[in-house]
Amino acid sequence: MTKLDELINRIIDRVNINLREPSFDVGPYVRDLIDREKFLRFYAFYGLTSQNALRFNFRECNIAGSYFLGKCSVNHSVVYKTDVRGDELKNKGDVFQSDGLRIRLHEDECIMIKDSFLVKTLIHSHSHDPENPETFLIQNAVSLHYANIHGSPVEGSFLGPFSTVDLTTLHDSVVGSYAYVQVGELSHQLVESGTIWIRSAGNFEFRYQYEPSVLEKYIETLVGSAPRGVFMDFVESRKGDFIEIFERAPSQSVIPVPNGASLSRYAVVKGDNRIEQNVLVAQRSYLQNTYMGKGANAQENCYLIDSNLEGYDVTAHGGKIISADLGKYVFVGFNSFLRGSQNGRLKVGDGCVIMPHTIIDVESPLEIPPNSLVWGFISNSDDLKVNSIDLEEFRRIEGVFEQGHLNFSGSGEKFVKGFRNRIQHILEANGAFFESDINPGHAQWGRTISFNIVQPYREGPSRGLYPTIDIRPEHEVRAGEI
Amino acid sequence: MTKLDELINRIIDRVNINLREPSFDVGPYVRDLIDREKFLRFYAFYGLTSQNALRFNFRECNIAGSYFLGKCSVNHSVVYKTDVRGDELKNKGDVFQSDGLRIRLHEDECIMIKDSFLVKTLIHSHSHDPENPETFLIQNAVSLHYANIHGSPVEGSFLGPFSTVDLTTLHDSVVGSYAYVQVGELSHQLVESGTIWIRSAGNFEFRYQYEPSVLEKYIETLVGSAPRGVFMDFVESRKGDFIEIFERAPSQSVIPVPNGASLSRYAVVKGDNRIEQNVLVAQRSYLQNTYMGKGANAQENCYLIDSNLEGYDVTAHGGKIISADLGKYVFVGFNSFLRGSQNGRLKVGDGCVIMPHTIIDVESPLEIPPNSLVWGFISNSDDLKVNSIDLEEFRRIEGVFEQGHLNFSGSGEKFVKGFRNRIQHILEANGAFFESDINPGHAQWGRTISFNIVQPYREGPSRGLYPTIDIRPEHEVRAGEI
Repeated sequence: MTKLDELINRIIDRVNINLREPSFDVGPYVRDLIDREKFLRFYAFYGLTSQNALRFNFRECNIAGSYFLGKCSVNHSVVYKTDVRGDELKNKGDVFQSDGLRIRLHEDECIMIKDSFLVKTLIHSHSHDPENPETFLIQNAVSLHYANIHGSPVEGSFLGPFSTVDLTTLHDSVVGSYAYVQVGELSHQLVESGTIWIRSAGNFEFRYQYEPSVLEKYIETLVGSAPRGVFMDFVESRKGDFIEIFERAPSQSVIPVPNGASLSRYAVVKGDNRIEQNVLVAQRSYLQNTYMGKGANAQENCYLIDSNLEGYDVTAHGGKIISADLGKYVFVGFNSFLRGSQNGRLKVGDGCVIMPHTIIDVESPLEIPPNSLVWGFISNSDDLKVNSIDLEEFRRIEGVFEQGHLNFSGSGEKFVKGFRNRIQHILEANGAFFESDINPGHAQWGRTISFNIVQPYREGPSRGLYPTIDIRPEHEVRAGEI
Repeated sequence: MTKLDELINRIIDRVNINLREPSFDVGPYVRDLIDREKFLRFYAFYGLTSQNALRFNFRECNIAGSYFLGKCSVNHSVVYKTDVRGDELKNKGDVFQSDGLRIRLHEDECIMIKDSFLVKTLIHSHSHDPENPETFLIQNAVSLHYANIHGSPVEGSFLGPFSTVDLTTLHDSVVGSYAYVQVGELSHQLVESGTIWIRSAGNFEFRYQYEPSVLEKYIETLVGSAPRGVFMDFVESRKGDFIEIFERAPSQSVIPVPNGASLSRYAVVKGDNRIEQNVLVAQRSYLQNTYMGKGANAQENCYLIDSNLEGYDVTAHGGKIISADLGKYVFVGFNSFLRGSQNGRLKVGDGCVIMPHTIIDVESPLEIPPNSLVWGFISNSDDLKVNSIDLEEFRRIEGVFEQGHLNFSGSGEKFVKGFRNRIQHILEANGAFFESDINPGHAQWGRTISFNIVQPYREGPSRGLYPTIDIRPEHEVRAGEI
């Protein structure tokens, strides 16, 4: 048995210890999930900018195909084709506010991944756990394809494919495939696949449940092999385009990149595309025959195909938009799947909020009125009536609201306000409002990034493992360093 | 002034302090030598194999375009397009023999580059200084284009372009362009350009001096800009081929690579080439319309063009062979320039030793008999008579021997034996004698290398500087490491 196999077994043991309750064995899911040769085939890389506090430490790990930015430590872990974006971490001296308390950071925050097995996962933002403001910890965790870990410390947990843990501290829990949780804190729970669950204690609770028969068409978790369904078919059929990009990493972009915009050299750009000022096209996003208006963005694992985005649109991590026309200020949440068709385009009006993990998959034309809140599964205009509401109407809800598979209780006003604030923050952070040196964000900073490539041992007992690598700012040297 | 400019000024001050005697100011040579944009344009990279003890530490430096293998620390230095090959360093526990003394190493040897400015230099082998067996030190040093530092600790010295310091500890000295020194130890001296000087205390001394009028046609050092002459024209006119290779770093080789051979993906391969078993084509070498027989090698900065090498031929670092036919077991020393022409091919017989820094540049056919020792400048058959001798004849020399610009004294037997042993060692180390798992060397190990890319900050006050990077084997972690 190689050292890498031993490492994987140790990770499985550690995660399972945490998951005694709920009783769950992650072994069968991960042990033979990834062909050992793939751990050698894809390089890992990290970005260097002058904006992001730099600090990387890789030790006893395989990080094949993964990308790192900011501050991150990976120990005793397998981190496969995963993006760890530490460009929104908190800095030393920052004041972190939570429940009216103010906590001043005594050192820079760092993402710490220990004893974990992560596959094609997206890790972003900063720890929202006020108890550990300096450490964004992911420990004894397994996460599968296209899971999002957003601002969420995760300990002793299993995240199914296409699941999202958002602004939530997760302990010893299992999150099913395509489930979305944004509930503050969760311990020893099993969240069913296809649950969309947002809870703000004392304010509101939003809960939607996909029908299993619908969900399994799109995503089904299999034991010991990659998941299957429409989502996987969709990304797998476009994988070749990414392999080509990663192999040649073109330094010149194929389309003009206007002032204040950035187009990652690790994004796929096919067909006829145009992007305007302050647009952010992140790495591992996919652009085909698409127009992106001023300040629109496509984050990691986004696919924008045959579509128009008028401007200031947010496509959150893993969002997919096909044959659709979006007005201004449209928000499309994590891992949402919006698919019109050639004869049935999808039109989304200005200011709409498409909730995370929404599936809109239509054969006939469908138009979503401006300022709608949209969730769940929609395949035609009847579904739309059940799974959407005018945002102003929703704002007036106080108490219980039930419609289709949605259960809401609490203050609609607070729910809508929270969302609006967050979308505004995302646009700001991404540099959508940049104007001659004012309000810069990721779109502007991304322009001067440099990429660094690291690879594992190719043979011998350490085959597939990376050497110990430590990287820090050029002025920051530890005592006794030669 | 940027931090990078400050660093360059500090290096100049430190080197000048060492060079008070001989009085020499390196400032004008290096201050504006390299366009600042070039410090950003080219990535640095390091190789990872299971054979080489790994250890890299980069701190407050620019290492643009440079390559590192093995163990190396670079502090407060500019190391530009330089190859640091630490794949022949001594290991902990090894016994180093010198003058009959046996010294056991208490830790692995490491190349340490401090307060130095190196341009397109080749650093290879291990420290031959018995006083510091664990450190191959290059400190307060400047070396210019295509200098070779081979097994030679260098302190407080200036190496001109195309010079070589071989198995020599160098203190506070200036080595002129295209000078070659292999003299054991040298302190506070100025070695004239075009001096070929080999001295083994108590055994022999070999000394050849190029005529300045001949030498300056081939290489002339200029103050504050790149050197000029035939050598520079030759490499500069082929530079574009390397830029292309470094940009796309092809993973598939363009010609078949037989068993036991290795062809670096960072070598240029143009036209119609063939290589046999156990051939080593190192990175930054250049192959065009050339045949390399079994066990032949082309080391860094070698150019083999329109030539045939029958087998077990050594082309040392920087050797150039154009329109020539080499028999078996031909040795071509460092930075030698062998140029036949379409109608005047150069033929070199079996077992010839072409001394380091030899220039053979012919318009008419020239044939060098087997087992000749050849040195100096040769443009026709008359020159050849003056600057060559049968090795068996040379072996019988005892005392003083003068011929043309060559002065030799001592034991010819020891001189020839020393060379023959060394050539045998080079072939062994390069894997020329590999046979089904026995006698592996660089040619075999090079097959499974993986490359890692590092880049500097692109903007801000640290523009052009690299972050602090520390890399060590995956099992080797320092105390207190997270």
